[in-house]
Amino acid sequence: MTAPFRHIAIIGLGLLGGAIGLAVAEMLPSTTTSGYDLAPETRARARERRLASHIAETAAEAVAEADLVIFCVPPGAMGAAAAEVASALPPRAVVSDVGSCKASVAEALAAALPAHNPALILPAHPVAGTEHSGPDAGFAHLFRGRWCILTPPDSADAAQVERLAAFWRALGAMTEVMEAAHHDLVLAVTSHLPHLIAYTIVGTASDLEAVTQSEVIKYSAGGFRDFTRIAASDPTMWRDVFLANKDAVLEMLQRFTEDLTALQRAIRVEDGGALFTHFERTRAIRRGIIAMGQDDARPDFGRGDH
Amino acid sequence: MTAPFRHIAIIGLGLLGGAIGLAVAEMLPSTTTSGYDLAPETRARARERRLASHIAETAAEAVAEADLVIFCVPPGAMGAAAAEVASALPPRAVVSDVGSCKASVAEALAAALPAHNPALILPAHPVAGTEHSGPDAGFAHLFRGRWCILTPPDSADAAQVERLAAFWRALGAMTEVMEAAHHDLVLAVTSHLPHLIAYTIVGTASDLEAVTQSEVIKYSAGGFRDFTRIAASDPTMWRDVFLANKDAVLEMLQRFTEDLTALQRAIRVEDGGALFTHFERTRAIRRGIIAMGQDDARPDFGRGDH
Repeated sequence: MTAPFRHIAIIGLGLLGGAIGLAVAEMLPSTTTSGYDLAPETRARARERRLASHIAETAAEAVAEADLVIFCVPPGAMGAAAAEVASALPPRAVVSDVGSCKASVAEALAAALPAHNPALILPAHPVAGTEHSGPDAGFAHLFRGRWCILTPPDSADAAQVERLAAFWRALGAMTEVMEAAHHDLVLAVTSHLPHLIAYTIVGTASDLEAVTQSEVIKYSAGGFRDFTRIAASDPTMWRDVFLANKDAVLEMLQRFTEDLTALQRAIRVEDGGALFTHFERTRAIRRGIIAMGQDDARPDFGRGDH
Repeated sequence: MTAPFRHIAIIGLGLLGGAIGLAVAEMLPSTTTSGYDLAPETRARARERRLASHIAETAAEAVAEADLVIFCVPPGAMGAAAAEVASALPPRAVVSDVGSCKASVAEALAAALPAHNPALILPAHPVAGTEHSGPDAGFAHLFRGRWCILTPPDSADAAQVERLAAFWRALGAMTEVMEAAHHDLVLAVTSHLPHLIAYTIVGTASDLEAVTQSEVIKYSAGGFRDFTRIAASDPTMWRDVFLANKDAVLEMLQRFTEDLTALQRAIRVEDGGALFTHFERTRAIRRGIIAMGQDDARPDFGRGDH
């Protein structure tokens, strides 16, 4: 296969930017990468880990030769990062990103790059990640078997959309195209709401007077630890996600709260039948996730008990 | 080491009962076990998997020779299971269980066994489990590195409490003694509330009209799948837990809802500072859990991406 792109600029060298650099080096060895991060210490660490073929000292330098530029910064920083490269951006370069909300990012990129061909601005979102962040967090196989959702505008160049999709498939991802607004709704429930709830419950637990933090930690194997994993995710990125996808998140939160209130009432009035019925139907979704290869069926994910 | 008990009766051969039987066979080979389950098909499967040295056809037969009887049934079934063995229970046998709520179970066992020495009724809770249930779910190392909380009544025989603790340590667990009421409060936050919330969000997601179930499943890697794991747990057991630990669960739920409402408001008024501050402090708890060996720090718990 000919590599879809010749030279990829990665702006932002945290978990996702670093993982893209390492994945390209392993899976598309003929493609050159140049990386840039606003933080000098991240650039230094990126050089040591070889997250890109070349780590540039300015964003403009990083994009100068690129035929694909991927912004890997928190949603709230997309506009500023794009503005920084605007004057140096090659006119035929495809512009993309990895942000968790797509409508707001598409708007920010378009506003920051008014001179760029809008048919080449193709937002995307690889649904992959871990609770770790920063230049030490990425690894080459992060995208393997995961979905990458492309949300091209109606005016997008179809050949370029396919070229970007081929790039993600080369890194091991499966690709899907959808409307930005629909993406934001889907991710509000599969990702943003779970994170908000995990952050909330971990906060609730640490504020208790009658139960010590050490007790919470010791007995976390009863379920709590699954929440702490996602509540350890990057705070800056998640602040931006909730602000950028505010409407969809508030809508999902409203539904969640209604459902929780119904279960709370069932507990209060001791309606065991209602609880059982609800608990039983949630198993089917778990089975679907295992069947689609998006999780591991082993007890405890092989957390070391075997 | 001399084995703490000579003959252990396991009443209920699901995940926990089965795991105890397999763990005893591996780690206390000189100890005999007899197992019983109300369901004939579970008894048959238990025989095939050798979950106990002998699978009895009645609960009374299972306990006849026992110096330790462990009830491994859902909290709501403890009383009935104990009543079934009452007439056959050797007078000097220690009686224990593995239930997730302790105050209500202690009451149920005492009420069902009025003739038994109350100093020998020693409830316990191994904080270990997976989302799987039934006679195929147990494995010998389930308790390794996990905590087992003993909640003996004030009148308990101290030597017998230590004997029971020694038994759990022999299976690989670490032990702790606490008041039943305090246990129920601690577990309400580290286990019961997380399960209730996980069940709720999985239900919320499956009820959406604008997002298909297939989309929820496909993009679950963004956080949702962590909730589906615990929401796949045994519905009967969890119904019983919420009814048996109603007051503590409702108290925790109230606090959680207040905290969630505060974050919801921060999103609505776009108070990024409040969101960031909250998200940042939850990382410390995660670090504590990793440091105490109650979870794995690897990204994705080594879910197969490496």
